[in-house]
Amino acid sequence: MNPLNRQAIERLMHYYYCIQEEFINLNSDCPVLSSSQLAKHLALDDSQVRKDMAAIGVKGHRHVGFDANEVVDKIRQSLGFTQNYPAVLLGAGRLGGALAAYEGFNTFGLDIVALFDADQRKIGLSISGHIIQPLEQLEPVIKRNHIHLGILTVPSETAQELTDRLIKAGIQVLWNFSPARLSVPDNIFIRHEHLFVGLGQLSYYIKKINNPES
Amino acid sequence: MNPLNRQAIERLMHYYYCIQEEFINLNSDCPVLSSSQLAKHLALDDSQVRKDMAAIGVKGHRHVGFDANEVVDKIRQSLGFTQNYPAVLLGAGRLGGALAAYEGFNTFGLDIVALFDADQRKIGLSISGHIIQPLEQLEPVIKRNHIHLGILTVPSETAQELTDRLIKAGIQVLWNFSPARLSVPDNIFIRHEHLFVGLGQLSYYIKKINNPES
Repeated sequence: MNPLNRQAIERLMHYYYCIQEEFINLNSDCPVLSSSQLAKHLALDDSQVRKDMAAIGVKGHRHVGFDANEVVDKIRQSLGFTQNYPAVLLGAGRLGGALAAYEGFNTFGLDIVALFDADQRKIGLSISGHIIQPLEQLEPVIKRNHIHLGILTVPSETAQELTDRLIKAGIQVLWNFSPARLSVPDNIFIRHEHLFVGLGQLSYYIKKINNPES
Repeated sequence: MNPLNRQAIERLMHYYYCIQEEFINLNSDCPVLSSSQLAKHLALDDSQVRKDMAAIGVKGHRHVGFDANEVVDKIRQSLGFTQNYPAVLLGAGRLGGALAAYEGFNTFGLDIVALFDADQRKIGLSISGHIIQPLEQLEPVIKRNHIHLGILTVPSETAQELTDRLIKAGIQVLWNFSPARLSVPDNIFIRHEHLFVGLGQLSYYIKKINNPES
């Protein structure tokens, strides 16, 4: 299979949700969908949908369409949701706690196996069955469990230092929720969830509503 | 002032964090920074930084640079962080609770004034001083408090219906954390935080690590 780029993965994720919401739930027997239905839902060209389906090995049936269950299964295989991969989470604050407790991640194969925090007062507390550990345990836990994924919900000030430690310990994929712009080597994949960028946009549009002339 | 587009706002937010982390904290007297320093931190051209600074009314001093505190103040004014704007939050689950309890939003002017949930068992419970209200109260609360911003952390199934209700009640700006692809009229601003797209990318890269041949 040819490698998928970021945009292709993003489209596959939208198909995945769209199909589960619109087709499988409503029509549970043997749901079929056409490329134009999917295209319309996602504001894409039909030809893009057909290329994406071909890329993950889904064959359409002429005059019938795609089998919705097959599309979902192939997306799950292609993106690796059928594997089970452990992750460490650094920063057991409110957002970290919400992520650690979220059970929906299991559907995607993600299993947060260990939580860490720099705050001594949090060490030993438990979130959804995970005990918060001190940062000294970071490297041994990553190595012992062959962990490739690190999730960062720490303050900006410590984010780069912790990222460097994670990478040195063997982490190759990072999910960053801190506002920091982290620098990582080229062979490391990092996905930023910069919620504060959203906040800037919202605030600006509200300002425009309140002061249309400004 | 000319209107700012989404990309410009995104760059301003990165300047904002970068300056606070790198310059103001380290060098508290009268910190100055050059366009090339900022450009380097954000992997941009110097000329882009100078244009962005000019767009928000920051004047550089020849051979000295920009005053870091002035840049921060002008960004806050331009993006409307100096206003105070109320918001409603729909969906008092774990993520909704984390957002409702996050005190850092105040710095940006955002004030979550009311929480709503469809689950009768949650009604009357309190998160960080906000009592969870039933959805029947949604429209009166929005109208009474002149609220423009709605935050959605509800399941996909109900997201579109609730979005329609919010807009009908007067909401003009939406921050969507649900996986749903919501359709809104052209005059409504919506920002999606599609965490599940990130999840698809992470999972795919981990699959590649585990099965380099696939």
